[in-house]
Amino acid sequence: MGIEKFTDVKPSEYLYNPEILTRLDFSRSPATFSPKISAAQPGEEWLKVRPLQRSDYDKGFLQLLGQLTSVGNVSKKQFDERFTQMKQSGGYYVTVIEDTRVGRLIGAATLTVEQKFIHNCSLRGRLEDVVVNDTYRGKQLGKLIVVTVSLLAQEVGCYKMSLDCKDKLIKFYETLGYKMEAGNSNAMNMRFEDPS
Amino acid sequence: MGIEKFTDVKPSEYLYNPEILTRLDFSRSPATFSPKISAAQPGEEWLKVRPLQRSDYDKGFLQLLGQLTSVGNVSKKQFDERFTQMKQSGGYYVTVIEDTRVGRLIGAATLTVEQKFIHNCSLRGRLEDVVVNDTYRGKQLGKLIVVTVSLLAQEVGCYKMSLDCKDKLIKFYETLGYKMEAGNSNAMNMRFEDPS
Repeated sequence: MGIEKFTDVKPSEYLYNPEILTRLDFSRSPATFSPKISAAQPGEEWLKVRPLQRSDYDKGFLQLLGQLTSVGNVSKKQFDERFTQMKQSGGYYVTVIEDTRVGRLIGAATLTVEQKFIHNCSLRGRLEDVVVNDTYRGKQLGKLIVVTVSLLAQEVGCYKMSLDCKDKLIKFYETLGYKMEAGNSNAMNMRFEDPS
Repeated sequence: MGIEKFTDVKPSEYLYNPEILTRLDFSRSPATFSPKISAAQPGEEWLKVRPLQRSDYDKGFLQLLGQLTSVGNVSKKQFDERFTQMKQSGGYYVTVIEDTRVGRLIGAATLTVEQKFIHNCSLRGRLEDVVVNDTYRGKQLGKLIVVTVSLLAQEVGCYKMSLDCKDKLIKFYETLGYKMEAGNSNAMNMRFEDPS
């Protein structure tokens, strides 16, 4: 039993069931891909779109997020605990793109699913923390990862998917089907402390 | 055991620990109340600010939400299941105001807490589904319920609290400490189906 415990490490444990990504119908998205790619066929055979894995701490997941915003010094233990908490809570669909040639993550986006009472106890999706490594530009990977988690939101039953964005990204998101709704498109924040 | 099971109904079961509401320091909020009120002292002795309870299906919770948007026909079983799911997931702080004279809910707002990897595995709060019964206007209850869940976000460790709102509500939220951040205050949505 002691040995079993010791070897009961699941380096490839997924945050959510990867099978769901194979069911996404990219023809449902208003996004145009040229050439055509999808989560199942991301364009290069060495690219893989999949859920975050517990072992991704060692594949540069946090360094990738560091290209988006400050991450701080997150230890492997902290990462592990947050991964476990997200999995236990449910509703966290952190999705990544791996360059399998080098075993590094080069893109990521998160769908979070909020449970509601309104609209017949509906679910609302949110797009969070989108990042693609700069050196992989021109491969439609930003579009790919956002469309992937947007289709995922629909697949898991969300009635809508929301995002907050900077002015310069509005046009990009419009091409993917997101809309500024007239008179109702304001995102406001209150900050409590300086995150490190 | 059979009897125990049958009587093991918890009508006053809270969605989250009500004790946390007593710890909120209203002097930390930039909001001005005149006269001064707080979650602990909402101005009238027959008003009570507290977490959603499992028994609130029978206190008009869904009818109250119906003043905000479409709710649909949510059965007691559905309500119960969603309540259980929210409690199991954690991070759902549905907060209500009850008029204890009549045993009806007259105000509500929700804080949802999203777990992150960025900013040292931080937490991000969101304000959702704010509603106050029209017939209770002039009692600062809209302000009260929003400040309550905003202070709650800080209390549970969120680094920021976010909301989406209509144009006409921007000024109201600014008085409570929320800001439109220059170049980064756009809320966009993609809708998948007509919620009933």
